[in-house]
Amino acid sequence: MKYLHTMLRVSDLDASLDFFCNKLGLVERRRKDNDKGRFTLVFLSAPGDEAAEVELTYNWDPEVYTGGRNFGHLAYRVGDIYALCQRLLEAGVTIHRPPRDGHMAFVRSPDGISVELLQAGDPLPPAEPWSSMPNVGSW
Amino acid sequence: MKYLHTMLRVSDLDASLDFFCNKLGLVERRRKDNDKGRFTLVFLSAPGDEAAEVELTYNWDPEVYTGGRNFGHLAYRVGDIYALCQRLLEAGVTIHRPPRDGHMAFVRSPDGISVELLQAGDPLPPAEPWSSMPNVGSW
Repeated sequence: MKYLHTMLRVSDLDASLDFFCNKLGLVERRRKDNDKGRFTLVFLSAPGDEAAEVELTYNWDPEVYTGGRNFGHLAYRVGDIYALCQRLLEAGVTIHRPPRDGHMAFVRSPDGISVELLQAGDPLPPAEPWSSMPNVGSW
Repeated sequence: MKYLHTMLRVSDLDASLDFFCNKLGLVERRRKDNDKGRFTLVFLSAPGDEAAEVELTYNWDPEVYTGGRNFGHLAYRVGDIYALCQRLLEAGVTIHRPPRDGHMAFVRSPDGISVELLQAGDPLPPAEPWSSMPNVGSW
């Protein structure tokens, strides 16, 4: 038995790809446009970890998504949590839970899906601006 | 960068473990009780695929979960989709989308999270009772 993917419905495919690929660093692996069903599927995975995918489902006819608290988050291990958060910050992404501890951060996708980032190995030494950066909203 | 887990909040830990472990066949890998935060975390993964986990978060103080359509589903590849669906059926699980095509089925967790099952390799030959089993509700 093998885990394949977690599927998320997205309301704006371009905005979601900008977030997950350009900002977060996932890579688009394949894409299917279905004219009859009027939807597009895009499969993403982390560089160096192609086995576990996120499937984005974009329905061409608009739907309203409200989050749903029982879906918590996706989690990724990252090589340098400060560098990634800096890149996200410069790209205009809110760091809802900054990596004050050099270990954990949370951001959210354009549809409000939380993404947890966890530093690989030991936590990084405390460093500004992260150490004194407050939380923003919920995640 | 590496995918670690998808986190789901569950309203009844026993019911969820019964579904995900006893019925679906995932394995509990580790568990953390947090008295101060009043929550329990349980990490599950498929047998033979320990890298990708599902994290169940059970908050001891009840919360109401409403699903949220933008979280679509978890997907697992399985060795014999008919055998697994038979086991689920006998355990009282509704097969919302039976594997009529020998390829794909959908069930739902006690909190309404959809789980997609995909036959490994080529689809199995059509077989009853699956071929003529209708869909039930949504997934």
